[in-house]
Order: sequence, then C-alpha cells, then structure tokens
Amino acid sequence: GPKFPSTYTNYGKRGMTLEEELNESNTYYEVTGQAVVHKKPTPIKIVKVDYPKRSAAVIKEAYFSTASTTDYNGVYQGHYLDFDAKETRNKSAFPLKNFHQHQIDHMRACSAQGGICFAIIKFVTRQEVFLYRATDLYAFWDAQQRGGRKSIPYADIAAKGIRLTAELQLPIPYLKAVDQLL
Amino acid sequence: GPKFPSTYTNYGKRGMTLEEELNESNTYYEVTGQAVVHKKPTPIKIVKVDYPKRSAAVIKEAYFSTASTTDYNGVYQGHYLDFDAKETRNKSAFPLKNFHQHQIDHMRACSAQGGICFAIIKFVTRQEVFLYRATDLYAFWDAQQRGGRKSIPYADIAAKGIRLTAELQLPIPYLKAVDQLL
Ligand SMILES: [Mg+2]
Ligand SMILES: [Mg+2]
Repeated sequence: GPKFPSTYTNYGKRGMTLEEELNESNTYYEVTGQAVVHKKPTPIKIVKVDYPKRSAAVIKEAYFSTASTTDYNGVYQGHYLDFDAKETRNKSAFPLKNFHQHQIDHMRACSAQGGICFAIIKFVTRQEVFLYRATDLYAFWDAQQRGGRKSIPYADIAAKGIRLTAELQLPIPYLKAVDQLL
Repeated sequence: GPKFPSTYTNYGKRGMTLEEELNESNTYYEVTGQAVVHKKPTPIKIVKVDYPKRSAAVIKEAYFSTASTTDYNGVYQGHYLDFDAKETRNKSAFPLKNFHQHQIDHMRACSAQGGICFAIIKFVTRQEVFLYRATDLYAFWDAQQRGGRKSIPYADIAAKGIRLTAELQLPIPYLKAVDQLL
C-alpha cells in the first residue's frame, strides 16, 4: 500500500508551515490517486557555477527571483487547478500586498482557459485556513487599484471562502472545497 | 497590442535550444490568449545563503536536484497539458535514458486524472521536432524494462508522432498537434 512520511500522523501539529501542510496534502492526494498537484520549485537566477572534477556541479552565486506564476498547479479529474497559498499573522484582514500583479494576471489567464483558480489563505494566529475563489480575490484587487482598501476583511473570507479543517493524513483537504467550485 | 521579444523574428534560427523555442512558443500562445503553459523552474537544493545588510540574499552554495515531475504544464481550452521536451543528436533513434522513471510515473498519474500528456522530441542533427504521445512512450518504456530495446527508432517517432514545423512567431506550434489528441 501507499507509504506516508511519519509526519503524517502529526496532522494539526502547530509549527508546520502552510507550504508543508500543502505538500503533505498533495502527496496524500497523489498516492491515493485523487489528484496530481505539485508546488513549483522556487525560481533562482544562477550567476556562477563551479564544475569540480569527479563531483557534482556547485552553484556558487545565485539569487532568488520573482515567480511569474502561482506556486501550485496540477490536474484533478480532468480539471486544471491553479492556486497560490498565503499566510498572514493579521487577525482581522488579509493584506493584498501578499499578492503580486503577475500572479493575479496569471490566474486570470488560467481562468480564461477554463482552469479552476483560487487562493489558500491561512490566518496563522487564528489557525484557520480557507479556500477563497479567484473571482472574489479579483474583485478586491481591482477595487484596490481604483483606490479601494488594501486588504480583504477576515469577515469576507470567512463568509465567502470555504473553511478547510485538518483531517487524518490530510492537513488541508482542499479538493472537497474544489468540488464546490465545479 | 501584444509585444513580442525581437528574437521572435528569428524563427527557424539554428542554435536556439529546444527550451528557448518552447518558451517563445508558450509566450506567443499566452499573449494571444490560446493557452497558458510554463516551464517549471529548475529545482535547486540550497545549502548556504548569505543575507548582506541592505541588499538581496545571496545563495552561496547550492546544487541542481532531480525534478519530480515533467518540465512543462498548463491549461489549454479547459484541458490540463503535461509534457517534457528532449533533444537528441542521435539520428536513428531516441535513447530512452533521456527519460527518468519518475517522469514516466508522473505522466501516467496525470493521464489517469484526464490530463493530456506527451513528449516533444527534437532530432537536432535532422532539425526535426515531433509531438509523441505518452501512451506510445509508455509502450517502449515498459518493453525496455522487460529487456527490450533501449531506444525508440526514429522511424517509429516519424510514423506515430506529429511533426511540428516552425511558423512565424511560433518555433514549435504544438497546440495544433494537441488538437489531434483531444
Ligand atoms: Mg507563494
Ligand atoms: Mg527536461
């Protein structure tokens, strides 16, 4: 049968980052044949590489660069999924500065192609995670650009979003919420 | 209107790598609203990072790591696309060692979810590029594991694959071939 890392038993464990929780959820979804979703590697601009004899190439100088897309994508029952995951320690609102214009543009382009796009938003101090539809996000994003508020109120995310609570082997059971978007 | 890099006029230019040709094709498809497909960043294992005051973090030691998926994925008219691109200088066959087990496993998992999976194979000395269906690739891969041949004959790829010839602004017009897979 499928093997899980031992950390799988620590669901709900505090201190796991949102990325770790999603990676575990994605592994579980993949080994159980439910979906294939991966986090993209962090884009790195490589400046200098050494090629020592008889051993692996060593990157000696490199810089983190800005991603041109969201962090996660994959396929679920024939549907293309595309999302980003963001944490905030703010209790009352999610600051829009956590998103970049190119991520919004990317999600819009994917939506236009029939992809299912959303954000996974974690309020760290509340220990609450939500799936929030990209269309709701666009509305706040566009309003901000017309001089509107720079954050999405917690109350809006709690009302329109879909709350995701940890299950055994599944820290963030987001596919159940995706089913409501289809 | 959409802006294209000036290299777009150099279609068919020798010396462009397959990756560069695909990146240009993907940019063209995206700005013209036909599909959203990106190459994933190269996965890097970071060992040491310096954080100089008042300037960007510098990665001082890192290594190339093996990708757990294929290099390209995205969405096209509601379809999830997943593929890898491989070049060979071999004229008579495509060596299967260009693929790794985890890439085959990943494509199979995506196929099982209803994704459209394939390889883009370039015979560099012939200057010929083909879209080759994942199912045809699996057949050779599995046969190899049972002691069969370690490469796919050029003749098989030319017969079953779909030839892709450069068009204006589109070095590798693979979506036309994808239409034949739907
Ligand atoms: Mg992110
Ligand atoms: Mg590759």
